[in-house]
Amino acid sequence: MLNTNDLKMVADRLHCVDALMSDVVFADKVLKGGNVVNVITREIYEADIAIAGEFILMVGDCSKLIGDKTEVIDVKGKYLTPGFIDSHMHFESAMLTATEFSRLSLPTGTTCLISDPHEVGNVLGKDAIKAMAEECATLPHHVYLRVPALTPDCPGLETAGRNLDSKDIPEMFEYPTVTGIGEIQGVTGIKFVYDNKYDVVKDTIAASTYAESLGKKVDGNAAEIFGEELASHIICGGTEISCHETTTKEECVEKLRYGVYVLMREGSTQSNMPECIKAITEEGLDSRRALLATDDMLAEDIIKKGHMNDIVRRTIKEGVDPVEAIQMVTINASTWHNLHLIGVLAPGKYADINIIDGKLEDMNVADVYLKGEHIASNGELLMDLQPYTYPESVKHSVLRDKISADDLKIASDEKEVMANCIGLIVLQNLSEDYRVKLPVEDGFVKSNEEDLLPVAVIGRHGQKDIGKSFIKGFNIKDGAFAETVSHDTHNLIVIGTNYEDMAAAANRVIEMQGGVAVAKGGKVIEELPLRICGLMTDEMKGQELVDKTIELHEIVKTELGCDIPAPFMHLAFLSLATSPKWKITDKGVVDVKNYKVLPSIEPVK
Amino acid sequence: MLNTNDLKMVADRLHCVDALMSDVVFADKVLKGGNVVNVITREIYEADIAIAGEFILMVGDCSKLIGDKTEVIDVKGKYLTPGFIDSHMHFESAMLTATEFSRLSLPTGTTCLISDPHEVGNVLGKDAIKAMAEECATLPHHVYLRVPALTPDCPGLETAGRNLDSKDIPEMFEYPTVTGIGEIQGVTGIKFVYDNKYDVVKDTIAASTYAESLGKKVDGNAAEIFGEELASHIICGGTEISCHETTTKEECVEKLRYGVYVLMREGSTQSNMPECIKAITEEGLDSRRALLATDDMLAEDIIKKGHMNDIVRRTIKEGVDPVEAIQMVTINASTWHNLHLIGVLAPGKYADINIIDGKLEDMNVADVYLKGEHIASNGELLMDLQPYTYPESVKHSVLRDKISADDLKIASDEKEVMANCIGLIVLQNLSEDYRVKLPVEDGFVKSNEEDLLPVAVIGRHGQKDIGKSFIKGFNIKDGAFAETVSHDTHNLIVIGTNYEDMAAAANRVIEMQGGVAVAKGGKVIEELPLRICGLMTDEMKGQELVDKTIELHEIVKTELGCDIPAPFMHLAFLSLATSPKWKITDKGVVDVKNYKVLPSIEPVK
Repeated sequence: MLNTNDLKMVADRLHCVDALMSDVVFADKVLKGGNVVNVITREIYEADIAIAGEFILMVGDCSKLIGDKTEVIDVKGKYLTPGFIDSHMHFESAMLTATEFSRLSLPTGTTCLISDPHEVGNVLGKDAIKAMAEECATLPHHVYLRVPALTPDCPGLETAGRNLDSKDIPEMFEYPTVTGIGEIQGVTGIKFVYDNKYDVVKDTIAASTYAESLGKKVDGNAAEIFGEELASHIICGGTEISCHETTTKEECVEKLRYGVYVLMREGSTQSNMPECIKAITEEGLDSRRALLATDDMLAEDIIKKGHMNDIVRRTIKEGVDPVEAIQMVTINASTWHNLHLIGVLAPGKYADINIIDGKLEDMNVADVYLKGEHIASNGELLMDLQPYTYPESVKHSVLRDKISADDLKIASDEKEVMANCIGLIVLQNLSEDYRVKLPVEDGFVKSNEEDLLPVAVIGRHGQKDIGKSFIKGFNIKDGAFAETVSHDTHNLIVIGTNYEDMAAAANRVIEMQGGVAVAKGGKVIEELPLRICGLMTDEMKGQELVDKTIELHEIVKTELGCDIPAPFMHLAFLSLATSPKWKITDKGVVDVKNYKVLPSIEPVK
Repeated sequence: MLNTNDLKMVADRLHCVDALMSDVVFADKVLKGGNVVNVITREIYEADIAIAGEFILMVGDCSKLIGDKTEVIDVKGKYLTPGFIDSHMHFESAMLTATEFSRLSLPTGTTCLISDPHEVGNVLGKDAIKAMAEECATLPHHVYLRVPALTPDCPGLETAGRNLDSKDIPEMFEYPTVTGIGEIQGVTGIKFVYDNKYDVVKDTIAASTYAESLGKKVDGNAAEIFGEELASHIICGGTEISCHETTTKEECVEKLRYGVYVLMREGSTQSNMPECIKAITEEGLDSRRALLATDDMLAEDIIKKGHMNDIVRRTIKEGVDPVEAIQMVTINASTWHNLHLIGVLAPGKYADINIIDGKLEDMNVADVYLKGEHIASNGELLMDLQPYTYPESVKHSVLRDKISADDLKIASDEKEVMANCIGLIVLQNLSEDYRVKLPVEDGFVKSNEEDLLPVAVIGRHGQKDIGKSFIKGFNIKDGAFAETVSHDTHNLIVIGTNYEDMAAAANRVIEMQGGVAVAKGGKVIEELPLRICGLMTDEMKGQELVDKTIELHEIVKTELGCDIPAPFMHLAFLSLATSPKWKITDKGVVDVKNYKVLPSIEPVK
């Protein structure tokens, strides 16, 4: 009736009871006299924590549990908290494998990650998700995946490498570390989906009800919806859902009232916590269903600022009581995820303990214990993580022959056309629609406007399609850059001042089988290979990647003259067909709100 | 991949989304303009609640969901709360079947019961538990069972009808409505058990780890234990346990700090909430793991005072904010039990709604909606509950031939003996030890002391054993009474002023196959048959049972002269071998703390 893991657990628990009850077995370690942050009762008090093997024996006066061989660690004056939980994130955003991400994240005290392999899923479907699940299972800490219920998010508007839907869920639920379904973006714009794609509603309800029947979780994605739409989205997700797409106080209040676990987002690319938190600080709502999550974290930010410790620090700065803020990354999260062996410091729970030096609100994680082991000190990881080798199959995901400059041009027999172009909005996923008359020269449409640059999305999943348009706002002066990071289906996106450099950059990415390339004067001048699904490096450590990213940004600025912040990220989101107003995919220009593909050019009327 | 229930759920959810999104489907009912008690955010605000089928569509402004056929119910000025949850109770304590209990309980707004069939389990093991599980599955509301991990609680000290241990758990987990393991009394006195019955520790850990692996729950029973012992008990239960045996503020504080879900008990027989609640009202602890439960409720009290509504009312009187008190019987409970479709008023949840008229703190439940249906009004049940017929096999549980008066006497060849007797403590489960010299007349020990009366526990599970002693404190003047309600193994217990009446009463109970009988002058003068396991009636409605119980108490008072309160309950707990100091079972006088059977008499030294 018990499997191997269960039997180990039985033996470990018996050992714990031996240590507590007998006169011959004692604690392995005792953290002595710290200020325990009790996230269950919302208290701080002085107590010891005794540990046997991977588990906490007791929190209180543990002097009776100290034997001759017990290691006693003096933590007087320091704060002890449970290990932190990031309730929603994507490894792909950091362009690092789960293992390399964890090397950076573990020393910050983040001992549990709930990750959504949505990006690799869009590229290689179950093959990539299975590989990532297997990687996660090799990690020593608590790393879990939520698998996508639908790829691509916008069937008909874009092409993914694999099409996943509810019929794939049972297989994916068998992969290790999978605890549920990831963000159900397919029903974010629920009213439109209900009116136009009723099957997606049915399919999502079937998938979430199936997940529920197995005790698995479903993450929502309820961006900017209220009332009946929010209620419908919640019901599509099986009624017990999270949402990490909340941006205003009013939205946060309504979602909490509706029972949603609000994962207040505070990552490298989006900062929604300061608005959301007002539901707690201004409206005084019960915060048990308020959680913190990063969604997208860049390696650089983890190295410079920290991970969940930094997010908690920022939350405290918004006026939240420190213990209440810590609840948002511990007990509130472990309750939502139904991970009852973590998130609290109590008998029998995993001994995941952060030791905080200095003021609690500064959240300076000096030492980290994971499953009883001292794994990090002053930002340094003390344990070795086994590198995981991804299968070759996920390293050949760019199914495309090289292209020519002409392939990227828009042909026309007219002299002048009305072009459906896009306007960039800096520091947002949203974009503008921009219709403009453009001349045709030598059979191709040509921009004659300052800073209106050609952009193309080259199908790389075996399809021949290339979506083409022009984009205003990138402010590039020379050259081009291309990347296979291109949300959410991650085709090959390229932008530039001229088609030759665009082709050179794109072809280098094709050659590398994924990554980023910058070209100028017909030559590639900088590159970053991302061989795993064209999204993540399997070669670099976090710091190397950060260094390379800084170089890339520097080159784009100095050599290409592009001075907008995070140009690669802005390009990557230009293809995100779930966020308005106009975007570009391999199918062409997309009118997001009306869920349709527009022609790149139309006759001038 | 989806079973029939799941498929119905999918259809129901799709219907809900239709009602929310389409222009042709509407809400079935709208409760208009009530004061919604939001137990998630801890707020009260005016809102409508729209219902479709069994589920809540939305809580807010529901005017758009009202169609031509929608029933609109004006609830302005009234409070709307989720249905209440009794987190730990035994149907057997009310001597009623689950169905009859529910007839009384549902109109009070208690729409979810977590019941522990520990008593019928001790009598007929899996046969009786399975029958009760099947009965619960016929009920329209949310009724779940936690099955015993061990019967009898004290092997060697008492004899149960069936011996259950961890090897029986997998079969019982297959029964309908079973959500976990009931109170693990086997490891309450954990230090003694660890030192003397290590196998019980191992067995409990195996059972709880198995339950955990299936996502099932384990109820603790951590009466009066602290520190290392409490930690050991928690670990034996798989670390995520409840406890309904907490009696002091200090105990409650420590258990909450240790992660235990404290079910503050407030039933007919024990009132622990006023002490426990001080952990919240005086110490200000986060109350998310503070719950309310009754453990044992008499039918009479439900009729007179109410069920969970009354317990909440009393909790508010102790100084708790009304919404916080309601959280203790709603969201706190549904979170612990992992019943995420109940306990909150939010989209997609079951429409279990109590309408409270008057002041919130008076908890006057005027109307009850269960799964969208109006099932009770002003204390009256409006729906019909199908009666459940228990199998004949559970109605023949008294396996004993009639006895003679001499069978109950203590024989001796001495002239005088030292008798190990018991001292009753009125209104407690605890008892005193009482050693006294007694004379022997005609070969039998005889009491020569005022109010020192013979008592016997007659084996009724096929064994021949009869435990015999004397008890001080019942203050009976004449006659005898006997009952098969006799915790926890429910043998036949009898007390009286003379052995002839004791035999008459006991024999009548044997003849009836369980129940209660009162005898005087050699004749039975009153009786109550309890044919299901000798514990519950399958013939009477709640009110009939109450009337009969009142008669029984009256007769014992007037005819037998016994003026202590609740004499039948006191007799029933005299055999509870888990609560100190000395008790009596079919094996004889039990020294609870030293876990041993004492001889009824010893030579005078």
